[in-house]
Amino acid sequence: MGLKTLVIVLATIFVAVLSFAFAFWLYRWVEKQPSENKRISHIRKLIKQGANTFLKKEYRTLLRFAIPVAVLIFVFLPKPLWLDDQKIVTHIIMTVAFAFGTFLSALAGKIGIAVATVANQKTAEAAQSGISRSFLTGFRGGSVMGMAVVGSSLFGIALLSLALGYILDDYSALFGFSFGASGWALFAKAGGGIYTKTADISADLVGKVELGIPEDDPRNPAVIADNVGDNVGDVAGMGADLFDSNVAAIVAALTMASTLGNDPKYFQMVFVYVALGLLSSMLGVLFSRMGKDGNPTRALNLGTYITTGLFTALTALLTFLLKFEWRLWGASIVGLLVGVIIGLTTDYFTNDLRKPVQMVAKASQSGPAFTILSGVSYGFLSVLPAMIGIAVSAIAAFKLCEPIGGVEYGMFGVAMAAVGMLSIVGMIVSNDAYGPIVDNARGLAEMGGFGEEVIEATDKLDSAGNTVKAVTKGFSIGAAGLTVIALLFAFVNEVKAAGGTIDFFDIMDPVVFFGLIIGAAVPAVFSALLMLGVDRNAQRMVEEIHRQFQDIPGLKEGKEGVEPEYEKCIAIATTGALRELLPAGLFAIALTVVVGFVGGVNAIGGYLAGNIVSGLLISLFMSNSGGLWDNSKKYIEAGNCGGKGSEAHKAGVVGDTVGDPFKDTAGPSINTQITVVSLVATLLAEIFLHISIF
Amino acid sequence: MGLKTLVIVLATIFVAVLSFAFAFWLYRWVEKQPSENKRISHIRKLIKQGANTFLKKEYRTLLRFAIPVAVLIFVFLPKPLWLDDQKIVTHIIMTVAFAFGTFLSALAGKIGIAVATVANQKTAEAAQSGISRSFLTGFRGGSVMGMAVVGSSLFGIALLSLALGYILDDYSALFGFSFGASGWALFAKAGGGIYTKTADISADLVGKVELGIPEDDPRNPAVIADNVGDNVGDVAGMGADLFDSNVAAIVAALTMASTLGNDPKYFQMVFVYVALGLLSSMLGVLFSRMGKDGNPTRALNLGTYITTGLFTALTALLTFLLKFEWRLWGASIVGLLVGVIIGLTTDYFTNDLRKPVQMVAKASQSGPAFTILSGVSYGFLSVLPAMIGIAVSAIAAFKLCEPIGGVEYGMFGVAMAAVGMLSIVGMIVSNDAYGPIVDNARGLAEMGGFGEEVIEATDKLDSAGNTVKAVTKGFSIGAAGLTVIALLFAFVNEVKAAGGTIDFFDIMDPVVFFGLIIGAAVPAVFSALLMLGVDRNAQRMVEEIHRQFQDIPGLKEGKEGVEPEYEKCIAIATTGALRELLPAGLFAIALTVVVGFVGGVNAIGGYLAGNIVSGLLISLFMSNSGGLWDNSKKYIEAGNCGGKGSEAHKAGVVGDTVGDPFKDTAGPSINTQITVVSLVATLLAEIFLHISIF
Repeated sequence: MGLKTLVIVLATIFVAVLSFAFAFWLYRWVEKQPSENKRISHIRKLIKQGANTFLKKEYRTLLRFAIPVAVLIFVFLPKPLWLDDQKIVTHIIMTVAFAFGTFLSALAGKIGIAVATVANQKTAEAAQSGISRSFLTGFRGGSVMGMAVVGSSLFGIALLSLALGYILDDYSALFGFSFGASGWALFAKAGGGIYTKTADISADLVGKVELGIPEDDPRNPAVIADNVGDNVGDVAGMGADLFDSNVAAIVAALTMASTLGNDPKYFQMVFVYVALGLLSSMLGVLFSRMGKDGNPTRALNLGTYITTGLFTALTALLTFLLKFEWRLWGASIVGLLVGVIIGLTTDYFTNDLRKPVQMVAKASQSGPAFTILSGVSYGFLSVLPAMIGIAVSAIAAFKLCEPIGGVEYGMFGVAMAAVGMLSIVGMIVSNDAYGPIVDNARGLAEMGGFGEEVIEATDKLDSAGNTVKAVTKGFSIGAAGLTVIALLFAFVNEVKAAGGTIDFFDIMDPVVFFGLIIGAAVPAVFSALLMLGVDRNAQRMVEEIHRQFQDIPGLKEGKEGVEPEYEKCIAIATTGALRELLPAGLFAIALTVVVGFVGGVNAIGGYLAGNIVSGLLISLFMSNSGGLWDNSKKYIEAGNCGGKGSEAHKAGVVGDTVGDPFKDTAGPSINTQITVVSLVATLLAEIFLHISIF
Repeated sequence: MGLKTLVIVLATIFVAVLSFAFAFWLYRWVEKQPSENKRISHIRKLIKQGANTFLKKEYRTLLRFAIPVAVLIFVFLPKPLWLDDQKIVTHIIMTVAFAFGTFLSALAGKIGIAVATVANQKTAEAAQSGISRSFLTGFRGGSVMGMAVVGSSLFGIALLSLALGYILDDYSALFGFSFGASGWALFAKAGGGIYTKTADISADLVGKVELGIPEDDPRNPAVIADNVGDNVGDVAGMGADLFDSNVAAIVAALTMASTLGNDPKYFQMVFVYVALGLLSSMLGVLFSRMGKDGNPTRALNLGTYITTGLFTALTALLTFLLKFEWRLWGASIVGLLVGVIIGLTTDYFTNDLRKPVQMVAKASQSGPAFTILSGVSYGFLSVLPAMIGIAVSAIAAFKLCEPIGGVEYGMFGVAMAAVGMLSIVGMIVSNDAYGPIVDNARGLAEMGGFGEEVIEATDKLDSAGNTVKAVTKGFSIGAAGLTVIALLFAFVNEVKAAGGTIDFFDIMDPVVFFGLIIGAAVPAVFSALLMLGVDRNAQRMVEEIHRQFQDIPGLKEGKEGVEPEYEKCIAIATTGALRELLPAGLFAIALTVVVGFVGGVNAIGGYLAGNIVSGLLISLFMSNSGGLWDNSKKYIEAGNCGGKGSEAHKAGVVGDTVGDPFKDTAGPSINTQITVVSLVATLLAEIFLHISIF
């Protein structure tokens, strides 16, 4: 590693540490906000306790799974110990990288929970003194998570790169790090997603639909579990998810760069860009606050636009100063722009000012079947602009960078587009984590009896969170798409490095096609397994809620001093989520291994491609239709198409209930599933090359 | 064309003519069955009239579309007239082939309607003298369609091959024939599918759900439209669909065979096999009748098994006598077997004796959201065995036949597997057309007031139709999968024949990947457009039904002599279907052309592959989840999980309503969409090769 590279990597570490300090400052700021209400404090503690208990149990389950995997990695990677002529140190480093990845991924979730379960109360109480303060509290709480996630991914990658550069001069152990992060995220996201939707659906179904009591009514036995779910699913799970996407994108770019044209400047460029992305996000967060118009959506979007602008300007400056390739700069800006475009089209399909949401609300007047049919239809339609966006950005980035020196540069351009799209991930996570915090705050305000005006303010903050979510989801799915395309290339590089003679994956080769078809089926089966988990679990919890309303005298009537047995519902959600979180992910990983041993690297090439396209398709469909149903229900509740309590509203609630696991359990988990499968294939490339039936 | 080939082609024409004679005999047999009931005759005539009116209008719409396409074909294919150094006769033949294909496809639908609207009454009246006679009437009515569809496809292909063999010695004009058949089928299927589900959903929603009157109650203004829909959607549309699949499979095999190893025996083999398939189906139909146990499902399946056995034995015999390659025989039997396996797994997911249907019924007790969630989940799960089946059969057929002489032989093996899977299509269409006939018969029995016992008998026949449908659908989707894989190869051959230097489509090539991603989005958008059509249309019809019940005094109470205005509902279904049938298909075709001009043949290669995998995925999902919901509702109606009128039943009806356009409009149309897109690409291959941006 040359001096210049060393300086740049150290600078990246410095920026990462800076972001930790910034996160700590934000955390202290949030913590210092006043909180006085006793009842809320009590509930908040219940939520925190529930979340931490679940996280502890979940992490223990995952650890039991990660340790054998670490052993397998030690024995088999990069190739089986007994066949390996290299030093054992490569095995040790690969294993350590994996462990480091899982650790940081787990930590990101843990930090998120820690701040979210404080910020929720502070946000609720701040709402008493005005929406502006309340917004800032919620947003800064979310930003702690944003800074921690991006900071730790950069910190981990930079540190590991230093070690690899000096010990091995080979960076493929970064895949081990990425696999650790993704593998952990896959299961954490699944567990959290099942937990949160189990509780959310059950609480809504019995509370809102059957009994007609408001959301977050303290009489509802599932209400605390629901709030816990927001934290473990939307905060911790989502944090782990974006941590892993970000790591995968950077790792794909770095491993390509490390062998590109024997010139360290590509490697340096990746670090410079991601460090500038984090820096831009920090500034964006710092300057995000609500204007006098009191529009939280605008405030959130403003932060995103500031970050985007800063990133564009700063990277242009450094590209000029450090004499990087302008074409690669162009590729990363293409990625960023397409990310924004995908976000905007996603917004079109989920915004209640637009036709799709309103048409679904209108269709709901004819009953729930039409809610579902029209929602599924618009969901299917919504995939087109995003798919075209991903396809166009991939080809544009490639064609832009190919002239630098050939195909490798073109593919590196695609990787840089993914890096560009994810450059503002710090801001994205901040916005995303803001959502569940204000959602929780709304719940606390309701349970604490803060009065209509305060609840209304938190409602407004909550709704802004939902709107912005559409845009951030567009980003994360788009980035996942570009990243896995880059990972596909990384896979080929690994095969070549292992002595494979493969230059292409011909679709017409039936072995490739075999992989393509089976790979395409995986995301469907994966999401089915997750949804069946939610389904089973929610049915159990609904039964429990029914039981409590029947058995506890005075509960339904809201008699003073009567409290439901919250902890029973929490226990059901916890146990169920722990039981259901493994099968889906294990299925995807196991099938990858089977296909690899059957069809070798050719089948795997097709399998990854099939997995990517169908994964993008299904995750876009599920995320968008879910968001659409959610907002369509809210649109009806705002007084349209009959308003609350009408037949249309009942149908809207059915749509929302179906959409919940679509958008919060299955849809977003598919991103991680694709990444994990790609990494498994890359890590096992050499083994598949030597052992397979065809 | 050598003498032996000539004899075989003539023999095929003879078998086709024989099947026409057989169809005519069956038709006369059905017609001769007694029919006496005046009221039923009246209603039957209304149905026939409605169906014919729709068909006439639909055909006129399609003709207005087909004529300009024919002109375009004449000018541009095989390459633009002004660039073409060949004789104009190739252009004329291509155009004639296209017209011939559309004509036969249209004819198949017409014949189906003619017999179905007679057989429905005969079946209903026969039910008075016992289920066995009634079954035979319904089945033989369906068989007229089966024989006509397969006979005319063989007749058309054989006749055209004769002409091509003697005039041009080049068989690529067969693609024009296939495109004519598929293009027509695409729109006929869409129009019929939208019609039938508009009427079905609206009739059920107002009749069964809101008013609680029985299915097919004559008071329901949409009841005749519903019965018309069974004919134009399930009979005519389905006939056109299987006509087109069968043609595409045979054409793919023939065009490959015509250039294979300079040996006419492969070409001969295809004709021998398809002729034997038709012969086996004729015998199967002849011997199908219900045993003393009175089990119609068994009778239908028995016919299928007889046909399968006969085909296997006869092809083995002729392969031996004519010294064809045994490996190719093996490939076609692999196709047939995998078809059966796909059918059986489909059956698992839609049979009410199995877990999925029962679990969905159980979930329905917690409300419609759970019906949808669990149904979607099982629907997603159900794609796995079928996708694996298709993947395995493709690779097995390829690897089996590759040793004959290389890659071309392997691909021809895949085409023969598709031919094998579709060999029993005569029997499949017979079974499929049996369904709507007995469904109609049930309706007539109800409207004619035939009493409980007769209705029960027709119910039993109807339910058998539903069960068998799962198996036949498995066949048709599986065959479509293999056929389009073969068409992909046909596309490459066309590119090569046009002087293209393409030897492979590399997934890693971003132009190919660009096509792959966009191609994958097409089936989703296509089915969304169709479903939105149904959705809009059904909402209009529901309004009309409400209006009639409000405005016509005595209608709701069933006062003697008061009749609803059936024709108004028929008009709504007709107008709506005509308006909605074009956009989806045009979108798919137009996007193909755009991608071709943007990315050239490379992008098209990826596009077709993406289209195939995502098309298989979505059509399997939609067909299976639709069937699952249908049977789950019936399972509840049979007295389980609370039975009729329970909350679970209401939820089950919601599931069934959602499933209706899934399984009868969108799902099965996707097969045709894939085929049409593949053919468009193949026909335009040469143009894309010369004109494109990348």
